[in-house]
Amino acid sequence: MTAITQSGLDALVARRRPGHSLEAAFYTSQDVFDLDMRLIFGRHWIFVASEPEVPEAGDYVTVQLGGTSVVLVRDDDMAVRAFHNVCRHRGAVILRDGKGFVGNLVCPYHQWTYDLTGALIHAENMPSCVGSPEHGLKPVHVRSLAGLLFICLADEPPVDFDDVAAQVGPYLAPHGLQDCKVAAQIDLVEHGNWKLTIENNRECYHCGGHPELLCSLFHFFGYTAADVTPAQAEDYQRFLRTQTEFEAIWDAAGLPWRALEDLHGRPTGFRTERLALDGPGESYTMDARQASRRLVAGFTQPRMGALHLHTQPNSWHHFLGDHAVTFATIPVAPGRTLVRTTWLVAKDAVEGVDYDVDRLTEVWRATNEQDASFVEMAQAGAASAAHEPGPYAPAEYMVDAFCTWYIERLRAGMGQ
Amino acid sequence: MTAITQSGLDALVARRRPGHSLEAAFYTSQDVFDLDMRLIFGRHWIFVASEPEVPEAGDYVTVQLGGTSVVLVRDDDMAVRAFHNVCRHRGAVILRDGKGFVGNLVCPYHQWTYDLTGALIHAENMPSCVGSPEHGLKPVHVRSLAGLLFICLADEPPVDFDDVAAQVGPYLAPHGLQDCKVAAQIDLVEHGNWKLTIENNRECYHCGGHPELLCSLFHFFGYTAADVTPAQAEDYQRFLRTQTEFEAIWDAAGLPWRALEDLHGRPTGFRTERLALDGPGESYTMDARQASRRLVAGFTQPRMGALHLHTQPNSWHHFLGDHAVTFATIPVAPGRTLVRTTWLVAKDAVEGVDYDVDRLTEVWRATNEQDASFVEMAQAGAASAAHEPGPYAPAEYMVDAFCTWYIERLRAGMGQ
Amino acid sequence: MTAITQSGLDALVARRRPGHSLEAAFYTSQDVFDLDMRLIFGRHWIFVASEPEVPEAGDYVTVQLGGTSVVLVRDDDMAVRAFHNVCRHRGAVILRDGKGFVGNLVCPYHQWTYDLTGALIHAENMPSCVGSPEHGLKPVHVRSLAGLLFICLADEPPVDFDDVAAQVGPYLAPHGLQDCKVAAQIDLVEHGNWKLTIENNRECYHCGGHPELLCSLFHFFGYTAADVTPAQAEDYQRFLRTQTEFEAIWDAAGLPWRALEDLHGRPTGFRTERLALDGPGESYTMDARQASRRLVAGFTQPRMGALHLHTQPNSWHHFLGDHAVTFATIPVAPGRTLVRTTWLVAKDAVEGVDYDVDRLTEVWRATNEQDASFVEMAQAGAASAAHEPGPYAPAEYMVDAFCTWYIERLRAGMGQ
Repeated sequence: MTAITQSGLDALVARRRPGHSLEAAFYTSQDVFDLDMRLIFGRHWIFVASEPEVPEAGDYVTVQLGGTSVVLVRDDDMAVRAFHNVCRHRGAVILRDGKGFVGNLVCPYHQWTYDLTGALIHAENMPSCVGSPEHGLKPVHVRSLAGLLFICLADEPPVDFDDVAAQVGPYLAPHGLQDCKVAAQIDLVEHGNWKLTIENNRECYHCGGHPELLCSLFHFFGYTAADVTPAQAEDYQRFLRTQTEFEAIWDAAGLPWRALEDLHGRPTGFRTERLALDGPGESYTMDARQASRRLVAGFTQPRMGALHLHTQPNSWHHFLGDHAVTFATIPVAPGRTLVRTTWLVAKDAVEGVDYDVDRLTEVWRATNEQDASFVEMAQAGAASAAHEPGPYAPAEYMVDAFCTWYIERLRAGMGQ
Repeated sequence: MTAITQSGLDALVARRRPGHSLEAAFYTSQDVFDLDMRLIFGRHWIFVASEPEVPEAGDYVTVQLGGTSVVLVRDDDMAVRAFHNVCRHRGAVILRDGKGFVGNLVCPYHQWTYDLTGALIHAENMPSCVGSPEHGLKPVHVRSLAGLLFICLADEPPVDFDDVAAQVGPYLAPHGLQDCKVAAQIDLVEHGNWKLTIENNRECYHCGGHPELLCSLFHFFGYTAADVTPAQAEDYQRFLRTQTEFEAIWDAAGLPWRALEDLHGRPTGFRTERLALDGPGESYTMDARQASRRLVAGFTQPRMGALHLHTQPNSWHHFLGDHAVTFATIPVAPGRTLVRTTWLVAKDAVEGVDYDVDRLTEVWRATNEQDASFVEMAQAGAASAAHEPGPYAPAEYMVDAFCTWYIERLRAGMGQ
Repeated sequence: MTAITQSGLDALVARRRPGHSLEAAFYTSQDVFDLDMRLIFGRHWIFVASEPEVPEAGDYVTVQLGGTSVVLVRDDDMAVRAFHNVCRHRGAVILRDGKGFVGNLVCPYHQWTYDLTGALIHAENMPSCVGSPEHGLKPVHVRSLAGLLFICLADEPPVDFDDVAAQVGPYLAPHGLQDCKVAAQIDLVEHGNWKLTIENNRECYHCGGHPELLCSLFHFFGYTAADVTPAQAEDYQRFLRTQTEFEAIWDAAGLPWRALEDLHGRPTGFRTERLALDGPGESYTMDARQASRRLVAGFTQPRMGALHLHTQPNSWHHFLGDHAVTFATIPVAPGRTLVRTTWLVAKDAVEGVDYDVDRLTEVWRATNEQDASFVEMAQAGAASAAHEPGPYAPAEYMVDAFCTWYIERLRAGMGQ
């Protein structure tokens, strides 16, 4: 818990050994956490919600990045706007709920009132403030990528988001996220650093610990043939056959499926790829069959596999024929991370008729709990004086890439 | 949460913009909190209790200022003394309860025993220590202002307390606080910095949020005619008429009522004024009628309005014809503040006959909860990276004065 | 809570006044706590368990020293080994339970597998790591002193442990701890600094607060005739007579009993002495009679008194004719300390027949709770700005010696 000086942080970053996990201080130090909040979460595009969470004008969600509360609200022109959720009078937080509906944004303390464009339209006894840009809500950059909402707290956000959108957009667009609705949302606080949550997500070397997920997902995410053990050989052959079948399905449907991977060397690292699924191959359910009878977008049959998307620093997503599931990772403290999981189904699907929430969420609820346990044991180990970075397995190359990206971004932010 | 260096603190203090609220770090930083505890709560007169809380010899209360525990005890000569509540042997806290009765002060660890003057009168096997001033309890300065007990932890307390007592005494004396008894006491921990608690108390610009209080209090505390909105005009006229009626009542009773206000430019800032009350004008109750049938002191009729008193840094009070209510604000952490509210009635009033505790406390219990909510939302906003001091409304001038006083006192303490 | 600089720590250490308790910062400061964990608990022999806690090959216990988790495991050759409980791959904690049984040590994250010598024997897809010393579990020094297990986290542990073992061994050996079994173990978290726990243990000046313990223990531990008060004179005479009786018993049994005391001037300070017990003199029970009908080792009658042992920094022990009780003090935070108490009886004693756990543990459960209360009041006092080191009574000389040792060890560690 000892404070780390600036030169200590410089040295820590400089010491990073490629191919190896990060030093313990990256997970335990309050100073590194503060740095992460400033240089990573304060300057990059952060996935926080999806458009179906704010379907109508006046609908809002609030998100908390460190101490900073941001409100995303759909305005009267149906655009999603983002503002700092802080009154310009005495600095009170304006909207305290996680989601809701408003006509205007009214501070509950002294009733200063802002419209959905953030303009101050009422301040009792302070007429000179009304309408003044100096007293309007401070805007926050917000972008929708095929319905996924990203915000950036920096004055000048990374410009490579346009390129990511151009590359990833064609993969996502066929899934019609804007025409979905939220079926379920679960917040889980993991007892570990946010980077452990992301690192854990970037490899399937630990997937033996996910029996429910392996009902549909092949164990070989991140693997090459060279990584397959003799015991896995038969499964791997089935995986290769299934992959070939799915490629035909995707090609027939005009869906791009080849992996796009650009995990470091840029501010907005990302990866997307369409994944073959095992068995019936329809969905992340215990029987790998669809969870919602109503397919999303224009899909005509459920066996579509899963489109996965990673964005750095903080999200991953799966788009299936019958639903989508998004994951937002929000740091809370050096050893606490919020993982918000949202399941979305076609807007006209009827709960209890077309889908059952328990069945829809069963696999990822279990998987998230298992991942939380892995993250917690890794966090516990990082507290040890004996902790030392170990070597990554080949199948963990994406974890290595994430760490490389992270160190690059710290260096860029620290002016190294 | 980043540590603030001395030069950072200097700059923070130097940047204060008059007419605007304080920067966020004043509410969130542990370093500023430590500074507040040292320079404000360690060097000024702090209201902590009233004489009716220790009516008999041996009665004590303990109060906690930061880590420092102080005991106030009435000695055998009926004077109230204050001591550091720490044994001179192994440093254990001697009295662990918030209030009680003792013959002597006996440390429960090794039975070192002090009399009510703080002298060590027993220490087993250590006869040379007994009676030695070096081993007596360390005294703390304590003063009674018409029954209100103030302590000061500094070796040399601010000398202007005498002047405050001389000015305020004639306002308070007729209320006979020493002849009252405690009817109720409630501790509330607000989730905000102590300065937000005080700032909130110093304006009625937010009083729309206090429907129970507005049953008796006019909305115009801190207002001038220029601040009154058209919608408030009729109420304001009634307020002016009522004020005239009350002035006649006060004059007839020989009660001083004009505002005395000296909120900055001195260590012991204060404000007192007699306030007209709405409707029956008797008390802070839901019907504005008296809560206790037994009036305090020599009052012969209940329609006496409310004498208010503010003292800096940490108290406010209301004295009515039938009861008094005192508020002590004690910082607990940067974002936690104890507000101790005490209701006092005439010593010979009988609970259940002359007064009902629920009715007596109803308005301020509700008001305190509402204020706690306002403080909490202001504290939440101060955590935001986007927090920025905003302008005070004219009716918030006392808040501005408090901040001015606070910055002055920090500067004095920091030797600027 | 203000951070203490290196020069501040130097000054704090330099200011220590012999014969007086330590300054408050030694108990409250996070910086001192970090120093304690590094220089005291990181470099000395720490008592953590006893051999009967890991009786069979594969049996393990884990202990937590600050963030560092250590596993003590009995290997296939029946030796007790200690390792850092952290996987060499991604740094996860391997064994999360406090005790258990394993064949190998398998990391639950990615199944890296170590044998009981700490060698890596399996790592999927990473054959080059298997068997490499660089990827084996990091060993921790461990020593058994007549069955008491001490670990040292330093690369080069204090060499004087051999001397302590040579001196103390003959006192302990007759009690046959290796042939005992654990009858009960209780963890208690005291709300105070670990040094307050130890200091409290090193004197009987407070023993008036331990009525249950005084059923068997004479009040005069640490006392000389000069310290006895007139009210204690009769008890003291009985103590002297009883002592003479016990010396004859011990001599007849060939048991060394004279005090060995070397509390400072060396890294591994210690004290041992055989104590006469009051009344029947058999055990620490409410009637001072044996708690287990089955005596330990080869004792033929129960009236053996109590062999006590202190080791610095963190343990004390009592060995009786019918059982032993060990106490390990483990710092958790500046104001939190784990006290682990373990009662051991002869391996062949049968619970419910030969001994009753409630009766066996009754006295020390009560005594521990009382001590926790004393520690808590001392910790509370240390938070006060008025806290000042006071003088030790003559009967507290061992507390003074402990503080002297502690300051010496800090100085040695800080290179003073």
